[in-house]
Amino acid sequence: MTARADHLVGVLGGMGPAATADFYARLIQHTPASRDQEHLRVVIWADPTVPDRVSAVLEGTDGPYPAMLAGARRLCELGVTVAAMPCNTAHVFLPRLVADTGLPFVDMIEETVGALTRAGTAPRAVGLLGTRGIVHSRLYQDRLRAAGIRPVEPGPEVQAEVDAAIRAVKRGELATAGDHAVAAVRRLAGGTVDAVVLACTELPVALRDSDRAGLPLLVDPTEQLAVAVVTTCLGAEAHRAG
Amino acid sequence: MTARADHLVGVLGGMGPAATADFYARLIQHTPASRDQEHLRVVIWADPTVPDRVSAVLEGTDGPYPAMLAGARRLCELGVTVAAMPCNTAHVFLPRLVADTGLPFVDMIEETVGALTRAGTAPRAVGLLGTRGIVHSRLYQDRLRAAGIRPVEPGPEVQAEVDAAIRAVKRGELATAGDHAVAAVRRLAGGTVDAVVLACTELPVALRDSDRAGLPLLVDPTEQLAVAVVTTCLGAEAHRAG
Repeated sequence: MTARADHLVGVLGGMGPAATADFYARLIQHTPASRDQEHLRVVIWADPTVPDRVSAVLEGTDGPYPAMLAGARRLCELGVTVAAMPCNTAHVFLPRLVADTGLPFVDMIEETVGALTRAGTAPRAVGLLGTRGIVHSRLYQDRLRAAGIRPVEPGPEVQAEVDAAIRAVKRGELATAGDHAVAAVRRLAGGTVDAVVLACTELPVALRDSDRAGLPLLVDPTEQLAVAVVTTCLGAEAHRAG
Repeated sequence: MTARADHLVGVLGGMGPAATADFYARLIQHTPASRDQEHLRVVIWADPTVPDRVSAVLEGTDGPYPAMLAGARRLCELGVTVAAMPCNTAHVFLPRLVADTGLPFVDMIEETVGALTRAGTAPRAVGLLGTRGIVHSRLYQDRLRAAGIRPVEPGPEVQAEVDAAIRAVKRGELATAGDHAVAAVRRLAGGTVDAVVLACTELPVALRDSDRAGLPLLVDPTEQLAVAVVTTCLGAEAHRAG
């Protein structure tokens, strides 16, 4: 087992920047530590100039891949022992990144679906809020179905609210983002879902200061990824609840 | 002039981790951008295992320096064009780091004192709250005096509150940290100061959710560093107010 201080967590980030900052904050929050020296060593490669992931997934092109690969190669060269990519849509390229670099990525989608099924009573129907790219990719839907959970996709009006929330986070307009994200959750939850997956890392940022009263259970992949990375690094040591 | 997308901001961080996450969030917040691709490329080397800076400064040893230098060398190799180190106490080693690596660091202390003197009416007396190391180093005091501002150092009781606030941030206990930080500001402000410099990057984190009513003007070096890095990268382009 690698000792805590020998681990180097690599973050392939910047997609987008606020989501990467959010992920790093959760990683720190979930690491049991009483002083700096007990925290994890982390290197973050945050390149927001990576071309748009959503249009690439929708059009079936690999526009963002070369920049993502370049970033992953830098993390490799730095000696990363555990890697994370806090962007759901970018996970479409994860298998290729792993094949090309061998970086030991923790898969955010796998961790999120795993957390849902590990819960005492797994939900029967789960709503999905994310970019048009992640919805189109079916990464979440296929894994949820395989776990016996029915995925509920956003309709056009919900998707428009999600898109507006994501764009607002990237502009730094968090209050506007929160309003759109809450509207998206409410509309989707109007159906019969037991929980909603915030399947774009900008959505937890959007909802950070929002009033969640009356909203269904929100499942946050950023949180699941942070917990999984800490658990991978600390092994049997328990992680601290956030 | 280097174009925005050609800059690579390097952050020598992890001293401590929460302060680094705070700095990165401010950097994003101050970057005028309407989409990911307009944000700055950033690489963060966050090594919290760097030995304690405070005891090294107090004892006149260079315990943390080799680990800091190793991190700075990695940032160099990655092609960093602008560097920042969001730790006030570590600035004692900044001249040596610059001499050994040539990394173009923005000096947080210089930026903070510069911001005070650029203000319409420069304050006459400024309180200083930071680690025992930064106070002992006189880095702030000497530059404040050179700018015609009288520095007011913390007494033993104020210093004890500061130390408790910093330790609590490093443990992730932000409410406790906030109470100690507010107490430190109030005690120091009981003297005749026009402003208080939060000269440890854990202090703005401690005060993030605190009630600041009745407190004097707080000057935040993390904020000044973030603004200065954005300004350095964007040149004449105005930065967005946070």
